[in-house]
Amino acid sequence: MREDFFTLRTVLWDEGRVRMIDQTLLPQRLVYKDFETWEGVADAIRRMVVRGAPAIGVAAAMGVAVAAHRSKATTREELLKDIGRAADGLRSTRPTAVNLFWGIDRVVGAAKAAGGSVDKVVRAAVSTAVEMAEEDVETNRRLGKIGEGLLDDGDVVMTQCNAGALATVGYGTALGVVRAAREAGKCIKVIVNETRPALQGARLTAFELVRDGFHCTLISDTAVGHMMSTGRVDKVVVGADRITKDGFVFNKIGTYQVAVLANRHDIPFYPAAPHSTFDMGRTHDKVVIEERAADEVVRVKGRRIAPKGIPVANPAFDETPPELVSAIITDRGLIGRPVSENIARVIG
Amino acid sequence: MREDFFTLRTVLWDEGRVRMIDQTLLPQRLVYKDFETWEGVADAIRRMVVRGAPAIGVAAAMGVAVAAHRSKATTREELLKDIGRAADGLRSTRPTAVNLFWGIDRVVGAAKAAGGSVDKVVRAAVSTAVEMAEEDVETNRRLGKIGEGLLDDGDVVMTQCNAGALATVGYGTALGVVRAAREAGKCIKVIVNETRPALQGARLTAFELVRDGFHCTLISDTAVGHMMSTGRVDKVVVGADRITKDGFVFNKIGTYQVAVLANRHDIPFYPAAPHSTFDMGRTHDKVVIEERAADEVVRVKGRRIAPKGIPVANPAFDETPPELVSAIITDRGLIGRPVSENIARVIG
Repeated sequence: MREDFFTLRTVLWDEGRVRMIDQTLLPQRLVYKDFETWEGVADAIRRMVVRGAPAIGVAAAMGVAVAAHRSKATTREELLKDIGRAADGLRSTRPTAVNLFWGIDRVVGAAKAAGGSVDKVVRAAVSTAVEMAEEDVETNRRLGKIGEGLLDDGDVVMTQCNAGALATVGYGTALGVVRAAREAGKCIKVIVNETRPALQGARLTAFELVRDGFHCTLISDTAVGHMMSTGRVDKVVVGADRITKDGFVFNKIGTYQVAVLANRHDIPFYPAAPHSTFDMGRTHDKVVIEERAADEVVRVKGRRIAPKGIPVANPAFDETPPELVSAIITDRGLIGRPVSENIARVIG
Repeated sequence: MREDFFTLRTVLWDEGRVRMIDQTLLPQRLVYKDFETWEGVADAIRRMVVRGAPAIGVAAAMGVAVAAHRSKATTREELLKDIGRAADGLRSTRPTAVNLFWGIDRVVGAAKAAGGSVDKVVRAAVSTAVEMAEEDVETNRRLGKIGEGLLDDGDVVMTQCNAGALATVGYGTALGVVRAAREAGKCIKVIVNETRPALQGARLTAFELVRDGFHCTLISDTAVGHMMSTGRVDKVVVGADRITKDGFVFNKIGTYQVAVLANRHDIPFYPAAPHSTFDMGRTHDKVVIEERAADEVVRVKGRRIAPKGIPVANPAFDETPPELVSAIITDRGLIGRPVSENIARVIG
């Protein structure tokens, strides 16, 4: 894999270990950490060492593979029990991104389907997880090529949170579209919304765009409307953590208000997500929005920014209704308006 | 002044010195600092030791008074020259809040109008500045009483930035409305938007609301839309730095997007400002929006949150058009819709 030398890989399988960039240390330090148990992987997902819907899907899949690989079970039944325990534990880490469940289910399914010996089951679990990592990059490249047609040379693209290489195994979804546009010879500038509370925009999107030599500008979350009303944004491209069959886009908190503002200013708003992000079994009212700890809001890099004792609301995601979505960019094609009606045709 | 013992006073005159709360140290420490030169006051305004349109109006007025008080001039002409120099220096600190210019002009005017000796001119400058501080609290109490009628018992009020006691000499404008509602026996809860980059919501509004025993909840700026779409906000009340004669409200960055979201969710949006915030000589297109240093965005409490070398846009204010304003609360009465047509009648 030649590109490993040049581009970031967020999640890797390395001889029985899951190797991941510790994203809590970015942008100051780029550090890979190894995880040798599914509990370690689960903790990493919970603490956002790894985040981004596609990346946690693969990380969770590798978490199940690690459980299989490390299991001391001598029978197929015992092994599948160990795998089931790991799967349950990993499922409970974060409720909103659907890729998490998809990744786990796929490895569990492959393990169950593998006939024969314990060895064969382990090999099926591991090879499925590794395959998913490779597929993720290919999926994003395909998605990028499909989406880049929506961008024009000279466009300024606003993005929320991080839907880049660091949110996936590599290349990215929303930022994959921007990368593909550059590969197609277009000059694209990016406005990076810092994305409080966890600052994935300022920390992660800014990091990978600066690293890859993109022209980008960082803004506070409060400046989104002003940038649009003063004509400085041409398109919005964001990722997604879950898109329900009725066309609602669940993504990092703040996405909804970016969509409302884009709508007011006639700026196209494009979520970009692989088919694994689609939840064809659920409508939007059935999705749980994760509420995270108050500490994320009242502390920044360990420093307290608010008085002690203040109550906090910290929803990690929000939902954008289909009427605010111009089109959804997927690896299976563009989903045009009305997106709620066109999803099933494209995603199947 | 009995209430000095109980409520915050942001700016005070103390025998030839300007005493101000250093708001850069809040919420951790409540520290008063003394300023004995107009240059010191100008620097404090620039560094946001004191901020909030009404507070910087009075601080600048006291800066001119300090220049008069400290002047070694022996003739009226020399003294007025010293006062003029201080006025010019103070005018150049921050461009957007109109109260700054209003405060300076009023003290300069009083000094010029004072006939006779050097002593009389100094006394006129100082007494005008002190009077303005007293008036500010009275104005806010009047504004609060007028505005509180818009709030119902049990309301949840969202606010942006800090338009409280700390943005004024005392009591506050937007938070003055909330205080007046409580004094009228209503139970009001407040949602505090943290207000990046300078975090005046998290640091200052949260500080004074917790200190005064209000029920409040802190959120990230990204959660505004989600709080509204999930039905958790009844009204929005914010301050203003300048309201032009055509009804555009200039206020802390982020206010515009809160107004757009409130409009989408049929939530009333009320700016609250004293008559000194109205710029009856200008339309919105003539107002300069201050751009502040990148460091405010890339560092929080001294800690870097973004990679080195990333370009930043940091507009300090934005403008909300009159069609998004439900009514403007002033010390001279409510300005109802269409606000652009009703301003002149109420403000004169």
